[in-house]
Amino acid sequence: MRRVYAAGVGMTKIDRHYDKGFQELVHIAVKNLVDDVKMFSPEAIVVGNMMSSSLYQQDSLAALVADAAGLRGRGGFKVEAACGSGGHAVAAGYALIASGLYDQVLVVGVEKMSDYPTATTTSALAQAADFEHEAIYGVSFAALNALVMRLYMHRYEARREDLALWPVRMHEYGSQNPYAQLRNRITVEDVLKSAVIADPIRLMDSSPIGDGAAAVLLVSEDVARKVSDTPIQIVGVGMGSDGLDLTSREDLLNPMSVRIAAEKAYKMAGVEPMHIDVAEIHDAFTITALLSIEGLGFAKLGESWRFIKDGRFASGDKPSINLSGGLKARGHPVGATGVYQVAEIVMQLRGDFPGVKVGKAEYGLAMNTGGVATLTSVIILKR
Amino acid sequence: MRRVYAAGVGMTKIDRHYDKGFQELVHIAVKNLVDDVKMFSPEAIVVGNMMSSSLYQQDSLAALVADAAGLRGRGGFKVEAACGSGGHAVAAGYALIASGLYDQVLVVGVEKMSDYPTATTTSALAQAADFEHEAIYGVSFAALNALVMRLYMHRYEARREDLALWPVRMHEYGSQNPYAQLRNRITVEDVLKSAVIADPIRLMDSSPIGDGAAAVLLVSEDVARKVSDTPIQIVGVGMGSDGLDLTSREDLLNPMSVRIAAEKAYKMAGVEPMHIDVAEIHDAFTITALLSIEGLGFAKLGESWRFIKDGRFASGDKPSINLSGGLKARGHPVGATGVYQVAEIVMQLRGDFPGVKVGKAEYGLAMNTGGVATLTSVIILKR
Repeated sequence: MRRVYAAGVGMTKIDRHYDKGFQELVHIAVKNLVDDVKMFSPEAIVVGNMMSSSLYQQDSLAALVADAAGLRGRGGFKVEAACGSGGHAVAAGYALIASGLYDQVLVVGVEKMSDYPTATTTSALAQAADFEHEAIYGVSFAALNALVMRLYMHRYEARREDLALWPVRMHEYGSQNPYAQLRNRITVEDVLKSAVIADPIRLMDSSPIGDGAAAVLLVSEDVARKVSDTPIQIVGVGMGSDGLDLTSREDLLNPMSVRIAAEKAYKMAGVEPMHIDVAEIHDAFTITALLSIEGLGFAKLGESWRFIKDGRFASGDKPSINLSGGLKARGHPVGATGVYQVAEIVMQLRGDFPGVKVGKAEYGLAMNTGGVATLTSVIILKR
Repeated sequence: MRRVYAAGVGMTKIDRHYDKGFQELVHIAVKNLVDDVKMFSPEAIVVGNMMSSSLYQQDSLAALVADAAGLRGRGGFKVEAACGSGGHAVAAGYALIASGLYDQVLVVGVEKMSDYPTATTTSALAQAADFEHEAIYGVSFAALNALVMRLYMHRYEARREDLALWPVRMHEYGSQNPYAQLRNRITVEDVLKSAVIADPIRLMDSSPIGDGAAAVLLVSEDVARKVSDTPIQIVGVGMGSDGLDLTSREDLLNPMSVRIAAEKAYKMAGVEPMHIDVAEIHDAFTITALLSIEGLGFAKLGESWRFIKDGRFASGDKPSINLSGGLKARGHPVGATGVYQVAEIVMQLRGDFPGVKVGKAEYGLAMNTGGVATLTSVIILKR
């Protein structure tokens, strides 16, 4: 297997960029990436995106990104795995290099979400769910997650205020990340008093709607040192799925997509959860953070909320989780998020992340999921 | 580089399947694939699809396909490159195996197009074009191709009746392909008398609107013989892009996406155009066939229409092109088409294609494109 490295990264600050289209957002991210590398000559492009088709009537997205990045002629495709599109795009980019097809692949995640009324964006987000059996009845994506959260609180006897600690921590980290969409600090009381979105999920349990683009340049071992003095190796890649229709799942609180993706990535990397120093995980809602932490093996089923209450997974712990502020505060431009995560882990392992730093770290993990943990990717990186 | 084989194929007859959803179409194709192999245990899924998001409000398509194929748990993603999604999905599947990540990957192309009024589907097809600079003004995808066709006729002094020979031939082949949507024979007069879609493109220059699914099981060399007695090797994979906005192109009649994808695939396979025995190329409109044949190097620029007039590329010639009936007659369920093409080439090289056969053949080629030759993939297979 050819070794694959993440040799450069670039991000756009996540925001409601009403004045920027796909091309402008991609251009900023790629420009920052170009400043991060010694050489920039990608031979192919993979784009992580969910909503260009439903919200912006734009397919052929790889060609749009090629032009925005000054790479006309280079081939490629868009990867869709709903809110997990970005992580899966990195997995596809990894494969394009490890296969020997290319030596340099540009992976770009980009999403525009904020131009429309929230109801329109909410409908588009519900496309992550099963349309024929769920979304067609008007259930929102938040409502599906609310069912899971209520079951979690019931089964594991977690109180609503316990589950408010996660977003408080995420906003604390987000406040120090210059690329984060939400940089205000919040309290448990703020969470509990915020508007109900879909009971028991409140506004401050929910990731914000925003626009953004992130870029990662993946390269083969042959060119890694020509492109960067500090290439970070991708040592594990895993993907998994669970039933699209929630009623058909084995266990709503133990999604098999996360278990399968994590098992594959750990095995390939030759590590276990205890070896991970720093992780970026999917926390579109507070409940998502708990399922992600448990699915990745950082806590047993039903344990993660207690660990969080005890201060675990915070800066300084192993693993430190979501020092970026996570989807909750860094933001969640859905199809771009997985690429942001990988970019952040690369910077953490290099020691130049511009927010809360992990300190000395060898292994980092990025976990991104589409739907209610329906399509999950896990990427493990090593310094 | 690990060797990759197409070890099994399955197709759904293309039709207006008003009574079948994505899951039913996928199920039929995969069931046929299962009958074609000795062992079926894919570890990952790649889905080629363009319109599930815009027409059916359904993302997370890889999870839907996993369930339809009885493969819950297996990870994967959807690949979008507009009408070229299927070919790019095969390219991504190739990479997932050649990379060493997996030994068996199921590539499924699926598209539902016929449930809506033609105007709705036409709008969705225009998403292949540049929305901000083209589609927003109401131009249809056929109209963009009509501009190219008119330029071709003008520059190369081709007459309208000369360009009617292609669809006549495609219907002849389609009439013998049990999976084809259009099985009626037509004459040059039929083409010239058919309704104008976007002058000079007429109805019978245009691929029909239909629903379908095709599946290809890609495997590593390690398991190829366990899965099939007649695995067909994928020896070349290329991808290329051209400007999304047609006004920005170097030359409308010489799309760089085709040149770049073909050059890469030929080089990797160690062959030249003259070595290809049988090919399935993209002919969404008659003009598309000409650009594809020339871009692949089977004819020089401006020459292909004369070659077709002389009977070249027909059954018995080298290469024989579109013995399936092509997009014109086999049909063009857009995101599935590239997977149909690869399945057909596999059967041609094995000698069991159930329509017009190429006879003895060593090298086959499948060329699929999204947009007006905006995103092109070229896959070369060897017996």
